[in-house]
Amino acid sequence: MLNTRLDLDRICAARRVIDPVFLDTPLFRCEALGRALGCAVSIKLETANPVRSFKARGTEVVADRLSGQGRRAVVCASAGNLGWALGWSGRRHDLDVTVVASRRAPAAKLDRIRASGAVLEVVDGDFDLARERAADIARRRGVRLVEDSLDIETCEGAATIGLELVRQAPPLDAVLIALGGGAMATGVGYVLKALAPGAEMICVQPHGAPAMTRSWQERRVVTTDSTDTIADGVAGRRPIPVVLDDLLAVADDAVLVEEASIVAGMRMLLQHAGLVVEPSAALGVAAVLEDPDRFAGRHVVTVICGSNVDLDDYHRWVRPDPLR
Amino acid sequence: MLNTRLDLDRICAARRVIDPVFLDTPLFRCEALGRALGCAVSIKLETANPVRSFKARGTEVVADRLSGQGRRAVVCASAGNLGWALGWSGRRHDLDVTVVASRRAPAAKLDRIRASGAVLEVVDGDFDLARERAADIARRRGVRLVEDSLDIETCEGAATIGLELVRQAPPLDAVLIALGGGAMATGVGYVLKALAPGAEMICVQPHGAPAMTRSWQERRVVTTDSTDTIADGVAGRRPIPVVLDDLLAVADDAVLVEEASIVAGMRMLLQHAGLVVEPSAALGVAAVLEDPDRFAGRHVVTVICGSNVDLDDYHRWVRPDPLR
Repeated sequence: MLNTRLDLDRICAARRVIDPVFLDTPLFRCEALGRALGCAVSIKLETANPVRSFKARGTEVVADRLSGQGRRAVVCASAGNLGWALGWSGRRHDLDVTVVASRRAPAAKLDRIRASGAVLEVVDGDFDLARERAADIARRRGVRLVEDSLDIETCEGAATIGLELVRQAPPLDAVLIALGGGAMATGVGYVLKALAPGAEMICVQPHGAPAMTRSWQERRVVTTDSTDTIADGVAGRRPIPVVLDDLLAVADDAVLVEEASIVAGMRMLLQHAGLVVEPSAALGVAAVLEDPDRFAGRHVVTVICGSNVDLDDYHRWVRPDPLR
Repeated sequence: MLNTRLDLDRICAARRVIDPVFLDTPLFRCEALGRALGCAVSIKLETANPVRSFKARGTEVVADRLSGQGRRAVVCASAGNLGWALGWSGRRHDLDVTVVASRRAPAAKLDRIRASGAVLEVVDGDFDLARERAADIARRRGVRLVEDSLDIETCEGAATIGLELVRQAPPLDAVLIALGGGAMATGVGYVLKALAPGAEMICVQPHGAPAMTRSWQERRVVTTDSTDTIADGVAGRRPIPVVLDDLLAVADDAVLVEEASIVAGMRMLLQHAGLVVEPSAALGVAAVLEDPDRFAGRHVVTVICGSNVDLDDYHRWVRPDPLR
């Protein structure tokens, strides 16, 4: 019996309220990437939808519940993808959405939040400051605050990825999940442990934003003073205690990767799979690059969680190394 | 009653023999692209699969039939994508596959045909010379020749895209289909005319490879002496008469676009949708760019048919214009 906040029946119920455009995403073997990495690689692609990330699986559940409760407004902090997704789901459910984001978030993400119809407030600070500001807005306005990874709906929505992995891709030897706040890791991890316990569930985070990974490793909340990574989507400093508890129950490992590996992963996903991804989506490939022996000959699934990236940054990162 | 070689029951039967990894591909509204183009744009993404193009829908049907007939070998001519797809399907069905392609085909396509396990023969000439060579190999070796668009299985496989469009995306105002040999256009067009007759079915081809479009316009086979386009996937010179007959029965229009529009389309798909596509896959966006009034305010679906492109070429094509 897995002791987490998640529940299979609720995850199946979540699936029923998510707009189908976000469900049953492609899962396919990429032989060219596998040859380059020395293992069998399958890609679970969460970017071919109206918001270009997996986040709408969660915001669809959030918005459905709020709308069922007669709520008319909602506020969240976001590194970018959650905000766009909540803007999209809020429009579908006739909710007024306010998103608080860091001024340092990629311009592409901020632009798309605005275009979604959400009201965007930017803060001069990082994601954790945005979290504080969003909580403050919620208190002052009496508006519902959505907290990614803490609100169980965000985890249940992400967990529906796990249902699809289990149905589409057996046998799963290892599943690589980008670790940020923990919604995807705890959600997908729960489903894997419940329905495909032979699959190794590995979380991947950048060395430059290691708080949740260190917390998992030390089995207690570890915070950091700052983050320093291009993987803006996973750059939190303050893990949420109950989310860490859930993660401890379902993750088999949590590893940290270097920035250079993230860039190499982005480049390989372009070269071998034709995919433009944001840095967070390359964490899985980065983990294989840093520890190829661990994965050699195994079937590895990596979830491509988002493609919202400023193209100027992207081109600068992935252009071929002139010294090679 | 549509007078073509296609048949809805056979198309539904085709769907049942295609590996599910190629079916039910993403179809989603891309608001950013729509804003840029002045209409509502939905993308039908045929690149998130093991061969990065729609072609395996057809080769799966081909390979299933051949294998059911006890055949052990097959040969085809290919601009690249069909060859990779037939190599993939042949391996699944235990068929020896020989692919004949032009030496001028993108290196990425030739490499992937080889990696698929197919035997690749390259010819010093264009796609139509490869067709002659493949027919010659088939005669000499007594091996089954697969002819794209002529062999009804290739059309039936492509037509399954139409089933998904009709189910997933009503109302369809206009569907833009890249026109090469005609398998996708006649297949998808047939399903649309049968099940969604209100949708306008528009074929798009480059001015540099206009044979099929001119044939459609003049209602007789028109050949050309050469082709000159970056859209290698649709660069044929000699339309097949029965395929033209089918196309005349189902296409509402066939238009030609400039190379600059194809490049602009590729750039917009990257900028607004985060998609790396091969030139043929940008033909639909190019058509909207060249005639925006025709599509203004309508719901337009464009099929992103392939993403197999040499990245050096791609970067050269899509890099921002320094004079802008």
